[in-house]
Amino acid sequence: MRTTIGWQSVDGTVALQRATIERRDLRSDDVAVRVDYCGVCHSDLHLLSGMMPHYKNAAGIVPGHEFTGTVTAVGAEVTRLAPGDRVAVGTLVDSCGACSMCLVGQENFCLERPTSTYGSPDRVDGTITKGAYSREYVLREKFAYPLPAGLDPAGAAPLMCAGITMWEPLRAAGTGVGSRVAVAGLGGLGHLGVKLAAALGAEVTVLSRTPAKADDARKLGAVDLLVTTDDAQLARAASSFDLILDTISGPHDLSPLLRLLTLDGTLSVLGFPMQTPVNLMELTFGRRKLSSSGTGGTRHTAELLSFAAEHGITADIELLPSAQIHQALDRLARGDVRYRFVLDLADLD
Amino acid sequence: MRTTIGWQSVDGTVALQRATIERRDLRSDDVAVRVDYCGVCHSDLHLLSGMMPHYKNAAGIVPGHEFTGTVTAVGAEVTRLAPGDRVAVGTLVDSCGACSMCLVGQENFCLERPTSTYGSPDRVDGTITKGAYSREYVLREKFAYPLPAGLDPAGAAPLMCAGITMWEPLRAAGTGVGSRVAVAGLGGLGHLGVKLAAALGAEVTVLSRTPAKADDARKLGAVDLLVTTDDAQLARAASSFDLILDTISGPHDLSPLLRLLTLDGTLSVLGFPMQTPVNLMELTFGRRKLSSSGTGGTRHTAELLSFAAEHGITADIELLPSAQIHQALDRLARGDVRYRFVLDLADLD
Repeated sequence: MRTTIGWQSVDGTVALQRATIERRDLRSDDVAVRVDYCGVCHSDLHLLSGMMPHYKNAAGIVPGHEFTGTVTAVGAEVTRLAPGDRVAVGTLVDSCGACSMCLVGQENFCLERPTSTYGSPDRVDGTITKGAYSREYVLREKFAYPLPAGLDPAGAAPLMCAGITMWEPLRAAGTGVGSRVAVAGLGGLGHLGVKLAAALGAEVTVLSRTPAKADDARKLGAVDLLVTTDDAQLARAASSFDLILDTISGPHDLSPLLRLLTLDGTLSVLGFPMQTPVNLMELTFGRRKLSSSGTGGTRHTAELLSFAAEHGITADIELLPSAQIHQALDRLARGDVRYRFVLDLADLD
Repeated sequence: MRTTIGWQSVDGTVALQRATIERRDLRSDDVAVRVDYCGVCHSDLHLLSGMMPHYKNAAGIVPGHEFTGTVTAVGAEVTRLAPGDRVAVGTLVDSCGACSMCLVGQENFCLERPTSTYGSPDRVDGTITKGAYSREYVLREKFAYPLPAGLDPAGAAPLMCAGITMWEPLRAAGTGVGSRVAVAGLGGLGHLGVKLAAALGAEVTVLSRTPAKADDARKLGAVDLLVTTDDAQLARAASSFDLILDTISGPHDLSPLLRLLTLDGTLSVLGFPMQTPVNLMELTFGRRKLSSSGTGGTRHTAELLSFAAEHGITADIELLPSAQIHQALDRLARGDVRYRFVLDLADLD
């Protein structure tokens, strides 16, 4: 057994405490990674705030599922990675590998449930995975991606959850030159959605309640910001977008967004999926589609990292020593971040 | 002004009465059609039963929006049709003709609202359209389609609403050889969905609560019937269909159907769209899509008639003299029809 230091929820709340954490001894296909940078995701906050009903008790949880780091040791059969390599890891650390989803590189939809980076039983020994708010992580080589040279390791960490959550629906919709894409909500997910859609060649519009974000939207690559509280602006934009990436995290009415879709357009709800009333008549008109997805599989994740390196895309981040995780979670809860907190784990040494 | 005889709701209920109905004098781009056969659609019943909230009062309504007939007179500028021609007419009789939807032949989604075959204000004189439970109909030439030779005029009538409602989502999903399509509900819409999907080359499965329908399903072209009350059968079919045509008319839980979709698969809800709770988590897994649509525009309708003629596809119908409309509506309300009632309007002469 190996040990490392991390930030753990003792009582199931956001009051994370510095703790010694166990990591498994390396299996033959494992790598050990020194965690350098880990993004702070809304899901981390949701889980610690009791907003994820399938986690009845978050006690013992170590959050963190978008990180970059450096390989420090490898198992006997590891061939693709070596000590010293920079890697990036996302929300999945294992899957069945044999089902129809795994076979096409969509391990995020593994029919036998993928193993999450934290809070999930390991497929071999059944221990509950602990996340990357910690100095070391041990995982199967397959789910550690080489970090392309030239990508800033701190800014690249949020690509592994926020970024891939934007990338999969963009790719599934065939986004490219000529596409009209809207991004609802300009936060950790949304700002990467704008950058990625624009780099794919789409004309991108930000949908926001806050007109003051227009300058930022343009700097990120959007052509326009549409104020969603302005009915006249919404009416003018009716039936105009091929794809809307809805990154709004709280409950909200989907009908005004559906009305902005053109023929066969797709509203992809990505903020925090939950039970919501849907007026099917809004889907009938224009044969519109409502969809969702979450994070990504190995195929799209490798593709995203390559695309991000080619286009110089990383997240706009606020880098904090990991000891400031409490301030980060508090500010995230208030929406006070542009656009993603990333923890520097070096202070745990 | 012309007059004809039809079946009209006097008090807004299903108690239709034989009545003299006015038709407009022919405009230059109009045709007059002797209605030979008109299908009895669930929408007719819904409207007369007060289940369509946008129709607060169905008094004066003459239902009927899927019919075939014979041209009896044409306006001065009509070039495509001549007296004696067999035609088919569906749920739309006009649209703005200038919006982005009309320009691509999707007049069913006209941004200025299409003119429905009954219960809709005419775009020229504002009178409310009266449907084809009547011996004559007058409409713009553009929305009267030549009926291909070889298609039985009675069996072809339901193609114009039930058929096109199946055809558009099949085409939008790119259904063809290798596609796996399920049809939920085996009624007027569903039985045509099975025939059309099978003729497109798809492997078709019927989803039904009623195992006894398996023989009929196979005769229509399905390879199998899956009993939706059998959890084991549902579990075995998880993540297996590219497209589900959901023709169930009453309220029902969409989640069990969504779970049958494969990666990027689409559930198209076509029975009677309404407000329904949707568990977005069911869409997240597998990046599934929820959609809907209704009837069709000129492009797909012309295409459907040509395809139906080529493959010899018409509805399986029960043909009744129009005076038996009350029995037809009563039996339709009880689901007692295989698979569509069609009225023979000759008894109105």
